[in-house]
Amino acid sequence: MRSPTRGGSPLSLGEIAEMVGGRAEGPPVTSIVGVSALADAAPDEMGLLASRRYLDEARESEAAAFLVSEEVESAWGAGAPRVVVGDAHGALRILLEYFHPEKPRQAKRHPTAVIHPSAVLGHDVAVGPYAVIGANTTVGDTVSIGAHVVVGEDVRIGADTVIFPHVVLYDGTVLGERVIVHSGARIGVDGYGYVLQDGRHRKIRHVGMCEVGDDVEIGANTCIDRGSIGRTVVGEGAKLDNLVQVAHNVHVGAHSLLVAQSGIAGSTRMGVGVVLAGQSGVAGHLRIGNRVTIASKSAVYQSVPDGDTVMGIPARPRAQFLRAHAGLFRLDGLIRTVRELTKRVDRLEDDTEGSAN
Amino acid sequence: MRSPTRGGSPLSLGEIAEMVGGRAEGPPVTSIVGVSALADAAPDEMGLLASRRYLDEARESEAAAFLVSEEVESAWGAGAPRVVVGDAHGALRILLEYFHPEKPRQAKRHPTAVIHPSAVLGHDVAVGPYAVIGANTTVGDTVSIGAHVVVGEDVRIGADTVIFPHVVLYDGTVLGERVIVHSGARIGVDGYGYVLQDGRHRKIRHVGMCEVGDDVEIGANTCIDRGSIGRTVVGEGAKLDNLVQVAHNVHVGAHSLLVAQSGIAGSTRMGVGVVLAGQSGVAGHLRIGNRVTIASKSAVYQSVPDGDTVMGIPARPRAQFLRAHAGLFRLDGLIRTVRELTKRVDRLEDDTEGSAN
Amino acid sequence: MRSPTRGGSPLSLGEIAEMVGGRAEGPPVTSIVGVSALADAAPDEMGLLASRRYLDEARESEAAAFLVSEEVESAWGAGAPRVVVGDAHGALRILLEYFHPEKPRQAKRHPTAVIHPSAVLGHDVAVGPYAVIGANTTVGDTVSIGAHVVVGEDVRIGADTVIFPHVVLYDGTVLGERVIVHSGARIGVDGYGYVLQDGRHRKIRHVGMCEVGDDVEIGANTCIDRGSIGRTVVGEGAKLDNLVQVAHNVHVGAHSLLVAQSGIAGSTRMGVGVVLAGQSGVAGHLRIGNRVTIASKSAVYQSVPDGDTVMGIPARPRAQFLRAHAGLFRLDGLIRTVRELTKRVDRLEDDTEGSAN
Repeated sequence: MRSPTRGGSPLSLGEIAEMVGGRAEGPPVTSIVGVSALADAAPDEMGLLASRRYLDEARESEAAAFLVSEEVESAWGAGAPRVVVGDAHGALRILLEYFHPEKPRQAKRHPTAVIHPSAVLGHDVAVGPYAVIGANTTVGDTVSIGAHVVVGEDVRIGADTVIFPHVVLYDGTVLGERVIVHSGARIGVDGYGYVLQDGRHRKIRHVGMCEVGDDVEIGANTCIDRGSIGRTVVGEGAKLDNLVQVAHNVHVGAHSLLVAQSGIAGSTRMGVGVVLAGQSGVAGHLRIGNRVTIASKSAVYQSVPDGDTVMGIPARPRAQFLRAHAGLFRLDGLIRTVRELTKRVDRLEDDTEGSAN
Repeated sequence: MRSPTRGGSPLSLGEIAEMVGGRAEGPPVTSIVGVSALADAAPDEMGLLASRRYLDEARESEAAAFLVSEEVESAWGAGAPRVVVGDAHGALRILLEYFHPEKPRQAKRHPTAVIHPSAVLGHDVAVGPYAVIGANTTVGDTVSIGAHVVVGEDVRIGADTVIFPHVVLYDGTVLGERVIVHSGARIGVDGYGYVLQDGRHRKIRHVGMCEVGDDVEIGANTCIDRGSIGRTVVGEGAKLDNLVQVAHNVHVGAHSLLVAQSGIAGSTRMGVGVVLAGQSGVAGHLRIGNRVTIASKSAVYQSVPDGDTVMGIPARPRAQFLRAHAGLFRLDGLIRTVRELTKRVDRLEDDTEGSAN
Repeated sequence: MRSPTRGGSPLSLGEIAEMVGGRAEGPPVTSIVGVSALADAAPDEMGLLASRRYLDEARESEAAAFLVSEEVESAWGAGAPRVVVGDAHGALRILLEYFHPEKPRQAKRHPTAVIHPSAVLGHDVAVGPYAVIGANTTVGDTVSIGAHVVVGEDVRIGADTVIFPHVVLYDGTVLGERVIVHSGARIGVDGYGYVLQDGRHRKIRHVGMCEVGDDVEIGANTCIDRGSIGRTVVGEGAKLDNLVQVAHNVHVGAHSLLVAQSGIAGSTRMGVGVVLAGQSGVAGHLRIGNRVTIASKSAVYQSVPDGDTVMGIPARPRAQFLRAHAGLFRLDGLIRTVRELTKRVDRLEDDTEGSAN
């Protein structure tokens, strides 16, 4: 399969080994034009073999050569042309940047873009068709704003940030530099805050803002609420997947990973390097320590200290959860054992009573 | 309740019975103009009664007649005008197509649509206001592209496909024929792939693509990532509900059902006719067999063989899960039984010891 | 932190106490210009201290004064300038409306808006850039329609409703008065309904509609399906958070709360004042009583009577769930106890047998 953009002239196996810091093995190949998945690789491409799970696919692949992780190399035993490397995904990353360099950007503003006269745009800013940029907004240099993006008033966007089509940034939102925001993300939305009066939920005005640090990536259709008062913060280098929910006044720590469909309720503060696996949730007003891992599908209702891995609903430390959960599947046997034991004790009591009489 | 579009002249009960392959019962009715829900049916409409659960509503309905499933007929006993049929929803489908035929499409391109000169559009393609179509994209015959849809570069869209407003197709996406894509769906998004280096997550460029087969329907605000390398594939006839997440390099088998808010992590391959019920999740790099059913709210962490139904977090075969889960609610009693048993054994030991002395 | 909009002249502590029905304590402060979160409050702002959890932050806050709830006041003991009040969030709501009044709306129609000639707009309707309004749609007085909103045909929108950018209302949707709809919400989407014939899922045409009552708020990227036949209804005053799914023919009761990422399957009817906490789900065709609370992450598979709180997957009454769940973490000990007991019974049986011989 050929993907549309393609750069970098063909490479030999030796050149690739040098580029990724690995070693070339097997018959030499002189002209590799790209890297692809095993099942999709063309006969002049390299196929990625990073896990033993894909050994069967490697055998059926038409790839000219393979990018093989050290751990698979021993199990494979095939003499195919290959580059062996410690971190296959790290190597893949390097090869993809070589074979698929970013397209040259065109820093043009589409004539249909509606840009408020008070907005200040840096140099080489690209603005797509029908994008709307509000009053008093500042946009850094070489930012790309996709088609149909709506940027509110008083927004600040750092340099080199890329905003895909159909993103909405509510008034007052701040994005750092080199941020990537995917289609349909909504940033700075009013939080979910009401006061119950006479049986009706009365809205609390949300006047805080949302601040996204440098090098953050935000997935498609993800929602981040503004602070009710104060700020919602996404720390630098954090990566949010698609369909994630971040409520008002949450602080997401730097370099955290929020996997698809996970969610964090209001005012929770998270440390650095936290992982929320897919479809997990964290309740409001908690403190989640540095480098905490929250297993997929889990729900966290209590603060978690640094470094812990928690699991389950409600979440408990991993070892505790696994032990309890394993017990669940031994319950049936336990119930039978207790029933049997009860009968034996009945008999013993009968005997004892009998011998007492 | 009258829905806005309406076609097909009034029908008698006999004509309806013939149309849906059922039998007319009760007093004849000559002029039925539509079919609706029991609570909403007007006095010249037919009400749907497909389940016993709605018998009370049927009694209060103003409907002129009823479309009744065979299984309800015996329980009902009312002599109301009705058409009795084996598969009430199949019959409903036929009647809806008669009474509410699709509006005639207008194959016009709104003057505000921004279509790249290199894009190739088939005949009778409708393009709504403010839609954007990128370079080198090809659009099949009689396709409808809604208002504000953004179609990237190098996209291919098959004939008769309908794209509702506000959809985004990223560069290189391929849609089959007769596909329906609802508002806010994002297709071909960069997957969630990073390499950790020096404490920072470095993005792996996503250069693969996303291929959607014929007759697929994709719900509102659903996200499908492109392959990192290689392809993400949605097989023909699969139906994705709203707010579903399909990660990079996933293969969704033909005729599968992915119900609302379900999600599949990267590189998992699923067979034909799989059902992911609502809010369920599947981990990455697994093989899910043909006709597997994953219960709602479940999380699958291991590959599942053909035909299995799995349930729970982590998911286990249905029978196993239900037994274990029932045990959970007998635990309290079990704990009491064991406490009682311990006392009885204490006494027995005392007695034995006593008699030994 | 200063948020962009700001109104209301500075107030003294006494004036604030009077405004919110509280009492001023500590040294007088004459010129408070706003209210903010403790960590973000400027030296001329008031900081919110509604929970003991934030006492440490209060000590470090630069706020000029504090808005303190009665329950915190006793624990605090600091002599700082403050207003003490029973319901701190209710008081916050009042102060925010004073300090951050809504911006004056500009009832202008952007020249790029595409409004069908048959659509009827009330007085003082604002329509943003690139909004599209379909045929036969009626829009009430002083409605705001944001940039890029797509309103279908035959839609009715009540007075004073605010629709943020990028919302899509499908044909036939009805919104009440004072409704707020956030970015990316999709209302009136085709429901997920198919009939299986010859191994293929055939679509049931969705010809019903979606009716949203007065004073409803709908979060970002939330999806509400239309009825297949009949209606989907969201009762007045209900508040839906971000990324919520409401399937076809669901009735959401008045003043209900649907927290982020929760979902309701088709045809379920819910009473008044129901709470679906975050990431919870409700199966189809159920009746959920008035004032039912469904705990976060729970899945409801059976109808629930008025007033119950349910929890777990499958959901059970709260007390039952908590007892069973606590038991799960005593299982390990129980297994050990039973093993020990078995050994003791073995010995007793040996003894009895021994003494019998």
